[in-house]
Amino acid sequence: MLIVMRNNATLKDITHVITTLEDRGVFPVVNKNGDQTLIGIAGKNPFTQEQLTALGGVEDVVDEKKPFKRVSREFHPEPTVIRIGNVTIGDGSFTTFAGPCAIESEQQIHEIARFVKSQGAQGLRGGAFKPRSSPYSFQGLGEDGLRFMRDAGKENGLVTVSEVMDVRQVPLLVKYVDMMQVGARNMQNFDLLREVGIAGKPVMLKRGLSATIEELLLAAEYIYNSGSPQIVLCERGIRTFEQSTRNTLDISAIPLCKQLSHLPIIVDPSHAAGRRDLIKPLSLAAVAVGADGVIIETHPVPDKATSDGPQSLTFPQFGECANAVNALVAATR
Amino acid sequence: MLIVMRNNATLKDITHVITTLEDRGVFPVVNKNGDQTLIGIAGKNPFTQEQLTALGGVEDVVDEKKPFKRVSREFHPEPTVIRIGNVTIGDGSFTTFAGPCAIESEQQIHEIARFVKSQGAQGLRGGAFKPRSSPYSFQGLGEDGLRFMRDAGKENGLVTVSEVMDVRQVPLLVKYVDMMQVGARNMQNFDLLREVGIAGKPVMLKRGLSATIEELLLAAEYIYNSGSPQIVLCERGIRTFEQSTRNTLDISAIPLCKQLSHLPIIVDPSHAAGRRDLIKPLSLAAVAVGADGVIIETHPVPDKATSDGPQSLTFPQFGECANAVNALVAATR
Amino acid sequence: MLIVMRNNATLKDITHVITTLEDRGVFPVVNKNGDQTLIGIAGKNPFTQEQLTALGGVEDVVDEKKPFKRVSREFHPEPTVIRIGNVTIGDGSFTTFAGPCAIESEQQIHEIARFVKSQGAQGLRGGAFKPRSSPYSFQGLGEDGLRFMRDAGKENGLVTVSEVMDVRQVPLLVKYVDMMQVGARNMQNFDLLREVGIAGKPVMLKRGLSATIEELLLAAEYIYNSGSPQIVLCERGIRTFEQSTRNTLDISAIPLCKQLSHLPIIVDPSHAAGRRDLIKPLSLAAVAVGADGVIIETHPVPDKATSDGPQSLTFPQFGECANAVNALVAATR
Amino acid sequence: MLIVMRNNATLKDITHVITTLEDRGVFPVVNKNGDQTLIGIAGKNPFTQEQLTALGGVEDVVDEKKPFKRVSREFHPEPTVIRIGNVTIGDGSFTTFAGPCAIESEQQIHEIARFVKSQGAQGLRGGAFKPRSSPYSFQGLGEDGLRFMRDAGKENGLVTVSEVMDVRQVPLLVKYVDMMQVGARNMQNFDLLREVGIAGKPVMLKRGLSATIEELLLAAEYIYNSGSPQIVLCERGIRTFEQSTRNTLDISAIPLCKQLSHLPIIVDPSHAAGRRDLIKPLSLAAVAVGADGVIIETHPVPDKATSDGPQSLTFPQFGECANAVNALVAATR
Repeated sequence: MLIVMRNNATLKDITHVITTLEDRGVFPVVNKNGDQTLIGIAGKNPFTQEQLTALGGVEDVVDEKKPFKRVSREFHPEPTVIRIGNVTIGDGSFTTFAGPCAIESEQQIHEIARFVKSQGAQGLRGGAFKPRSSPYSFQGLGEDGLRFMRDAGKENGLVTVSEVMDVRQVPLLVKYVDMMQVGARNMQNFDLLREVGIAGKPVMLKRGLSATIEELLLAAEYIYNSGSPQIVLCERGIRTFEQSTRNTLDISAIPLCKQLSHLPIIVDPSHAAGRRDLIKPLSLAAVAVGADGVIIETHPVPDKATSDGPQSLTFPQFGECANAVNALVAATR
Repeated sequence: MLIVMRNNATLKDITHVITTLEDRGVFPVVNKNGDQTLIGIAGKNPFTQEQLTALGGVEDVVDEKKPFKRVSREFHPEPTVIRIGNVTIGDGSFTTFAGPCAIESEQQIHEIARFVKSQGAQGLRGGAFKPRSSPYSFQGLGEDGLRFMRDAGKENGLVTVSEVMDVRQVPLLVKYVDMMQVGARNMQNFDLLREVGIAGKPVMLKRGLSATIEELLLAAEYIYNSGSPQIVLCERGIRTFEQSTRNTLDISAIPLCKQLSHLPIIVDPSHAAGRRDLIKPLSLAAVAVGADGVIIETHPVPDKATSDGPQSLTFPQFGECANAVNALVAATR
Repeated sequence: MLIVMRNNATLKDITHVITTLEDRGVFPVVNKNGDQTLIGIAGKNPFTQEQLTALGGVEDVVDEKKPFKRVSREFHPEPTVIRIGNVTIGDGSFTTFAGPCAIESEQQIHEIARFVKSQGAQGLRGGAFKPRSSPYSFQGLGEDGLRFMRDAGKENGLVTVSEVMDVRQVPLLVKYVDMMQVGARNMQNFDLLREVGIAGKPVMLKRGLSATIEELLLAAEYIYNSGSPQIVLCERGIRTFEQSTRNTLDISAIPLCKQLSHLPIIVDPSHAAGRRDLIKPLSLAAVAVGADGVIIETHPVPDKATSDGPQSLTFPQFGECANAVNALVAATR
Repeated sequence: MLIVMRNNATLKDITHVITTLEDRGVFPVVNKNGDQTLIGIAGKNPFTQEQLTALGGVEDVVDEKKPFKRVSREFHPEPTVIRIGNVTIGDGSFTTFAGPCAIESEQQIHEIARFVKSQGAQGLRGGAFKPRSSPYSFQGLGEDGLRFMRDAGKENGLVTVSEVMDVRQVPLLVKYVDMMQVGARNMQNFDLLREVGIAGKPVMLKRGLSATIEELLLAAEYIYNSGSPQIVLCERGIRTFEQSTRNTLDISAIPLCKQLSHLPIIVDPSHAAGRRDLIKPLSLAAVAVGADGVIIETHPVPDKATSDGPQSLTFPQFGECANAVNALVAATR
């Protein structure tokens, strides 16, 4: 059982809760989550949830066995709709984000932005800070890259999204992009989740390579609780024994998350498959299964890409994929 | 390297191949695959593939590193189309098989057959021999069940499919059903694959719970080589760490198998998800991704089903799912 | 709930149970497991377990939610000890089985038997029928191989074990070997489990590549119920995303099975690792964790083995491994 | 191909490398890794590795296909030995770290430190910042906890280790503990790896829940390259389909890492199993397989622990486990 105090709870409120507990032989653990005081009780206690909720300064009393709460459908039956400029995510429409794995130059990101816009994309993706398994791989252009992408987005009327890897990068991302992405490898980097939530901008939260759906929603709960309800979940494949694809796209996660949560969810077929020949069918599956969008890697010359070339679509391939997706959306939504 | 002799190769042919090898210091292992003699060479040998193929009675010289051959696209670029009565599988159409997990009574299978036919299904499924993890679970009605299903299929113009679990059951299945199913747990029961292939009837081959796509195609190769080219692959979910679904539907397997093989492939969302609330979206994903059909469990009163109740659709749910599938097929094929 | 009738229950007994149920509005499903009649009740029923057990001809009333029973520790608190000649398994001793993946010739199996005996092994393994993912791989010497191995075992005082792949092979295995092995790919081939149990010889049951521990014990329950309590479990690695080993040895399975079941359990490091450089440390781990033995592949010239060469130890490597194992056993048991 | 410039390379050096490349039609991507300039070349280039290494200011030219380098055995054939006070890790001895999941109070950590010391432990573990899947779980005592642990370690002659979750916590950890732990969820938090490496203190790096062994070594390479060669790897279980343990201890990872790398590696049976009844056998397996130590959770009253109670040993259980481990170490090393 966890007693969540209000942000504005006074020391007197907090002390009162603690002494109330101790008077009945319950010795709580007191803890901080940012400005919020959390008072935890292990084992049994003689109080009902109602009695504790009634104490001064208490915001909520949470049964830790129900793992997530504020991102759940029970808490918020209507779907969350995220609005950025003219783009809406979560209202039944289908949003296509596209762009390179990494922003490589000003010219490159502008060229890609123009093209994906012409094919009906609404969002532009591109990495400025790259999480790379190997320290010898290209690590990204940093702030320069973000500036290039911001300009390319503005010129072409595209919403921009880029990954934040470190709490120290949050202010930079806030300055330049419309939506911050928390990558799969950072899905349980809880300090980053908190900082991103405090920043208050829309967040795209990718599922970790071995994260369960429940853990994904708990990670979203961290962001939500820190102040940002504008969260887009992203299914990008999980790690399994099958080796013909880089990861296994868990297509069931889309209807499941829709049932369990009010948050929108999109599909990243590029990282799921790791090979370009599967991007089109997987994007169509995303439309059919009810996803709110896709995020696709495309590059004018994938073989020269600094990273993820094998999974990036060429421009003609992206055009073909976008056409098929748009046609299926038109026929079914 | 494996030298595959023709079925009608004489002992003289075989002896000649062996002595030719031994004269150059290569000591082969001789083996039988049914009527076919296989002559295996481990390690390096001084002969080219062409030289060996030219010897009398040799059908083929196979590099074991290329794992499957006759079920591959290279071997047979055109898609295999399976025809059973009026039903075709693999020609771009979409076939819906439906029925109970287990045939429970004559009345039950007739009632289900009538209903699924009325909703546009072309095939009837139902287990007469049930593979059950526990020896204390219901094991099926056996031959009675097969007869009930054959009659229900005939009366309603439905193609029938049922699982064969044991080589000794093959004749019974041949007698009663249109298509024999090899279940996930038997995907690498190689003797069963061979007997089923020899029987010559169409086969539905389910992917094993932890089988790679390559292993699925190799299992199909066993059936193909034993005499039956009429094989429908079936993706039914793989085992992963995610626990909110019984298995994880590997949706990428459908376009991948289509690339690698000429065989049709269908999706079993019921066993993949293990819960009825995901059957409709996963069936739609199957249509979108290019599958040749679905196989869905439905039961008039799932809660009273002898097995797999939680994943069986009620009749109204099946009707809703079939309507949505049919509408998407009509809009996209 | 499942009512298990005695093998000698009369039709009158069975009819009485059914009418007793029907008189209270419970309509059971009646089923056969070999000679045994099983009467299944889905959903709630007004009878207690005691009331049903008291009916004539009833052997047992099983709650299907408790998945395994007769192989459990609760059912049989003392460990099962299997005795074959001078060899005992399950009594706290440590038994080493060794031999080639496949029996390749009479000379080969005799040479190996002599060597492994000289290093302290008690058992001889070797495949006569090989389950091969590819139909183009070597399939084994069949009955000839079994005869060669029987003789090699006798001459060297080694207990023999070989895999049975098909119900039709059971009589052959009964004739030639001391212990029949059910391989990982057949762990849920329920008809084979039953036939092997009826045969009554000791059985080595390998865990399936994606089988849970519960499923392994349920498979053992099939064999146990069919008449053979002499079952040795075998942990041989499960399929995971890690690719530097062929499978991942689940070392925790050994103490877990010991807790849950009275059956002995051994470790197969060769198939788990798929590479010879890990066999020695994994064998030592097996000793330390409390396993009842190991089964190790060894071959005089692994690079010329018809199968599984990369995981077979050379004779010097096997000698070194056996010495280390024997020393650890001597120091700790 | 990646050209790694020396830390003290001048702008002139860097410009010279770039113009040399561009003169031959190669347009590199320039990047920073801390103070180090990295010049990346995608695709083919007309230069040999030797030609590029010969240019002024170049430290190394790395083929990105060889994934890790400085932590590999080839680079450093002798095992790395880490010395902290009287404790050595990696020299063939066996080190036991023990302590609570979370530091809960000054009294608690002192009580535990005294006890584990009395049982022969050399290290004290305890979390001050807890990574919790749920934002409603206890998050740790922070700096107070670290101070309590430092004092408990000093009084009892124990080396201390605690987890760092955020780059902003690094200075605090440096101040209070002997060894910083990077947790499984942060194994690919590359900025954290870098900061921890720069700090220069010994690091315990835990394998991610779905990380391959190669990825673990690449993560170690990040730390190594940032300045700290004192890294202890830690195998703590990977995520698989098996549900009777929290994770599956990949025991093969220990001999594999020993082969591939010169770094020491220890085993965390508590997080691997997630249940206390397996800690002793898994610890013994760790000794047998050649690990450099174990890290075990223990708590005076596990049922009242704020976290991970089910996997924490009681004091008597820890005593029994430590005795068994010490006896096996004495008998075998």
